Amino acid sequence: MKTLIIIAHGSRREESNIEVKELTEKVKGLADSEYDYIAHAYLEMAEPSLTQAIDNCINNGAKNITVFPYFLNSGKHLKRDIPEIIIASEKKYPDCIFRVTACIGMIEDMPRLILEQARSN
Amino acid sequence: MKTLIIIAHGSRREESNIEVKELTEKVKGLADSEYDYIAHAYLEMAEPSLTQAIDNCINNGAKNITVFPYFLNSGKHLKRDIPEIIIASEKKYPDCIFRVTACIGMIEDMPRLILEQARSN
Repeated sequence: MKTLIIIAHGSRREESNIEVKELTEKVKGLADSEYDYIAHAYLEMAEPSLTQAIDNCINNGAKNITVFPYFLNSGKHLKRDIPEIIIASEKKYPDCIFRVTACIGMIEDMPRLILEQARSN
Repeated sequence: MKTLIIIAHGSRREESNIEVKELTEKVKGLADSEYDYIAHAYLEMAEPSLTQAIDNCINNGAKNITVFPYFLNSGKHLKRDIPEIIIASEKKYPDCIFRVTACIGMIEDMPRLILEQARSN
């Protein structure tokens, strides 16, 4: 069972957390049969945490979890916080394969997307 | 003279700030003649600040400044901090037209980009 978790920073502002939840719903609508389960999680200030989301996925039968960091920069959250949680999860669930992808800020097309967004809004 | 300022959050981690600078260089390379001047700025923890970047642009002859928030969520930085700086700048430079675009997180194509990035990395 193949699972995708979109991990965002999380905010004190509920509207920002809802944006992540709504984005995840859109990803679900688009993903079709690529993943059996798609969930969101927050690193700080909101729930579910990444650990909670992983537990939920495992309880739903996940054997293969892709963690997608919805972050722009490769700061300490990506270099330290997320890897620490993944290492702990690998120990807790040795039968599940975990993979962390590059963050959204690393997409090659970002310069073009910036120019298009600046043009249209 | 048409100017684009890419405003990012800014980080204590110098590598993250350099990523923004390098991204801005790539946008410059792609923008061709669309803007006369393209600059980056940080809201916190790094320089140039948005105010400093605006001052620099005005000193370089800017009459029309587009501010592009390189943020994923519409939190307090977008709702409060950036607008406050723009209102102050409009008072300081009444002959310049300021415009703040939607942030990068608002691009419609984001769900597809997430799926592609999750697939390829």
